[in-house]
Amino acid sequence: EGVASIVVVCLTFIFTSAQTVPFKELYIDQYVDHFNFVSYGESIFKERYLLQDQWWKPGVGPIFFYTGNEGSIEEFWDNTGFVFDIAPEFNALVVFAEHRFYGKSLPFGNKSFSHPYVGLLSIEQALGDYAVLLSTLKQELNATSCPVITFGGSYGGMLSAYMRFKYPNLVAGSIAASAPIFLLSANSKRDFFWEDVTKDFNAVSPKCVDRVKKAFVMMDVISKKPGGLKELSTTFALCKPLTSMNDYHHLLGWIRNAFTYLAMMDYPYPTSFMGNLPGYPVKVACGMILNNTDAVKGLYQASEIFYNSTGRLCFDIWADFIECADPTGCGLGFNSRAWDYQACTEIHLPAGSNNITDMFPVLPFTNPIRNQYCQKTWGVAPRDLWGQAQFWAENIKSASNIVFSNGDLDPWHRGGVTQAPNPSVGVIMIKGGAHHLDLRGKNKDDPASVIQARNQEKDYIKKWIAESRQSQ
Amino acid sequence: EGVASIVVVCLTFIFTSAQTVPFKELYIDQYVDHFNFVSYGESIFKERYLLQDQWWKPGVGPIFFYTGNEGSIEEFWDNTGFVFDIAPEFNALVVFAEHRFYGKSLPFGNKSFSHPYVGLLSIEQALGDYAVLLSTLKQELNATSCPVITFGGSYGGMLSAYMRFKYPNLVAGSIAASAPIFLLSANSKRDFFWEDVTKDFNAVSPKCVDRVKKAFVMMDVISKKPGGLKELSTTFALCKPLTSMNDYHHLLGWIRNAFTYLAMMDYPYPTSFMGNLPGYPVKVACGMILNNTDAVKGLYQASEIFYNSTGRLCFDIWADFIECADPTGCGLGFNSRAWDYQACTEIHLPAGSNNITDMFPVLPFTNPIRNQYCQKTWGVAPRDLWGQAQFWAENIKSASNIVFSNGDLDPWHRGGVTQAPNPSVGVIMIKGGAHHLDLRGKNKDDPASVIQARNQEKDYIKKWIAESRQSQ
Repeated sequence: EGVASIVVVCLTFIFTSAQTVPFKELYIDQYVDHFNFVSYGESIFKERYLLQDQWWKPGVGPIFFYTGNEGSIEEFWDNTGFVFDIAPEFNALVVFAEHRFYGKSLPFGNKSFSHPYVGLLSIEQALGDYAVLLSTLKQELNATSCPVITFGGSYGGMLSAYMRFKYPNLVAGSIAASAPIFLLSANSKRDFFWEDVTKDFNAVSPKCVDRVKKAFVMMDVISKKPGGLKELSTTFALCKPLTSMNDYHHLLGWIRNAFTYLAMMDYPYPTSFMGNLPGYPVKVACGMILNNTDAVKGLYQASEIFYNSTGRLCFDIWADFIECADPTGCGLGFNSRAWDYQACTEIHLPAGSNNITDMFPVLPFTNPIRNQYCQKTWGVAPRDLWGQAQFWAENIKSASNIVFSNGDLDPWHRGGVTQAPNPSVGVIMIKGGAHHLDLRGKNKDDPASVIQARNQEKDYIKKWIAESRQSQ
Repeated sequence: EGVASIVVVCLTFIFTSAQTVPFKELYIDQYVDHFNFVSYGESIFKERYLLQDQWWKPGVGPIFFYTGNEGSIEEFWDNTGFVFDIAPEFNALVVFAEHRFYGKSLPFGNKSFSHPYVGLLSIEQALGDYAVLLSTLKQELNATSCPVITFGGSYGGMLSAYMRFKYPNLVAGSIAASAPIFLLSANSKRDFFWEDVTKDFNAVSPKCVDRVKKAFVMMDVISKKPGGLKELSTTFALCKPLTSMNDYHHLLGWIRNAFTYLAMMDYPYPTSFMGNLPGYPVKVACGMILNNTDAVKGLYQASEIFYNSTGRLCFDIWADFIECADPTGCGLGFNSRAWDYQACTEIHLPAGSNNITDMFPVLPFTNPIRNQYCQKTWGVAPRDLWGQAQFWAENIKSASNIVFSNGDLDPWHRGGVTQAPNPSVGVIMIKGGAHHLDLRGKNKDDPASVIQARNQEKDYIKKWIAESRQSQ
């Protein structure tokens, strides 16, 4: 009585789909600022989460909780089949929580990305949302003794680990797939990314890399000759021809971005996670690059694999690729604005390409460039000391009950944990695995390495659940 | 270049005193809102800290870091002699950090306690300040490999534990003395406090408790008869006579408050921590209560022990005791305003006295009373789910490298950790110990129990430091 209570608003729409697991789409009232009881402190917004309880043994089975990352939560629901593959045998309740400022969870609607509202977009606030959602669900579903296992990939994997770092009272264990947590340290190396994208192409064929390098050199020559920009515009089927060197540099970024996703999503079967890609897209791209007598045309065809997913007749490089505080791309739409803001504050991403350790043109991204961009775009300055202090990026010795998995094909893996800090932390390197392949549903084309990784993860989850039950 | 950096402003005033250890008084620039890069995010304030490096082996010795609580930091410096007693043999650097919104660390000067500024007073922000101060000191003093041990008593003990909970990357171990961390759970029992104050008096003499009970019954009778309030005003030497039952209830609160501090500060030798008290003040009070033929007069004399420290001729009960969201008292001055706000938001304190399990009048303090008071006073509502989720109040199984010490005379001890959740957490119960006696400097009148407790704490500190050095 009189105590502020969280109201779970249940809009039980059930979406069914032939391809994906159905879910209930639900919303929870969240304070917009968990850390301030005045000011915006009493304002609330509706955070979305998806729920599937068909396998749950009520009040007993564990809660499998996906810590949503930078996008609409359905996208992760549709690409995290591992959770659904194992939920039945664990009698688990499955919950996927949407990250504030993404998808349908905009705390201030259309105003969310203007001052001062965007300031409430932070990792701490998102973790606070998840802690409140978990506490509320446990209470309302009579699930106080149900162990919680968090799951997440990429930034979602960082959040999954952080939930165990900061809320082990609520989380029994955490699967953190392809989570580059060390990037949040100001002292971390961040020059590996383009080198590792290049390595993926080199592994298919060193000639492929030579050819890409040659193509970029040729483009540079073409760009500087009279009519060169027009020629490149034709080669790349651009809707709006290049008219300046600025345009030309944007084209280079657009191409590099295609290669980024070919490498990150280098799965052994066709996927539609971030674009519609064929199986082994790096191999497919190298095939085109090597089979084309015109090296520049080869670059175009490789880019087309990523960008042509909707069967377009021409490409708008300004719509397809937006330069932002993340040189590996911020995505599209308002989700990209949210990510850009995060990349300007707490998230610190890889450096630019240098054409020495990688096959790409020199497209620098340094701390001064980042700071200048962030000041201009958002009026904010990153705080390097904060990220590493707050999120343990320099010292994870005290971490427990987390599996950090990585794929050796994933250009992010060198930002992640590849050596266990202590025996309670599992580290898995998936040979032939791209970006959090282990979180995807099982597939007949899965390499043995990922099948083994998933089994190891299942064993860890069993152990954490047993531990949790034992100590109650 | 261009990266926001924390500037340590060194105002090297050295205060020397015959009685206390000298210190350098220093200030660090802190963001007023660590969790928001926009809005107030770029505003800074100067947080005070005290430093003593005379025993430090630079770059090698550990950092002993006191996590300041609800008051001016000198007060804790002067009453935490344990740290100085052991710093020399550890070659430790000693740092005492002042909590934001207390002492000289007011983020917005005189405006600090008005809306919306007071919203930035929270446990999370205070912990953020300490994390930034530690990170900065480690960097600026070339002390990155120096293990940090945090110390704190009471609310400061909670903060000391929370620093290890939330920032084990920065803190190797923590001494949390008389830290009632379980009170932050909404489900925690909070009816023990006045019962345990009563027990302290009962331990001296059950007759003392009977006499106190009788005195309150007599006061009740007197208060209801014609001229009764005047009579009580004379007995209690009040500067301004009671004129209403509201005044009378305030007098009861004022008396109960004296007994609270007599019990909390029931040290075996005279102290001047929160008021100037004789050694064994509970015994002294009971002596007066039992030796006085007039039971009400006995209550007055017991109260006088606490309030008469400045040798006043009459008492102003409205100035001495301020009713607030903490029924055990909020202290005086602007520090009491800050504590009142904290007690209205994240800190949840004991319930009121009931005259059944305790010897005091029925002075209720319930959640509805708290909520109504907080809404009226600060326009805020406590969030019960938040405190227990954020600060592990329901589940500390994952805690490590913390000693939770308590004294059996301390009426707070039942809010604290008295059973170790796992072998890496130490639990010490000090027989005959009042509120964080172990943190005080050594004294010839120390009971053997506290000497042993301090030795155990030293052993834990040695172990944590060794562990920390080993894993580097």
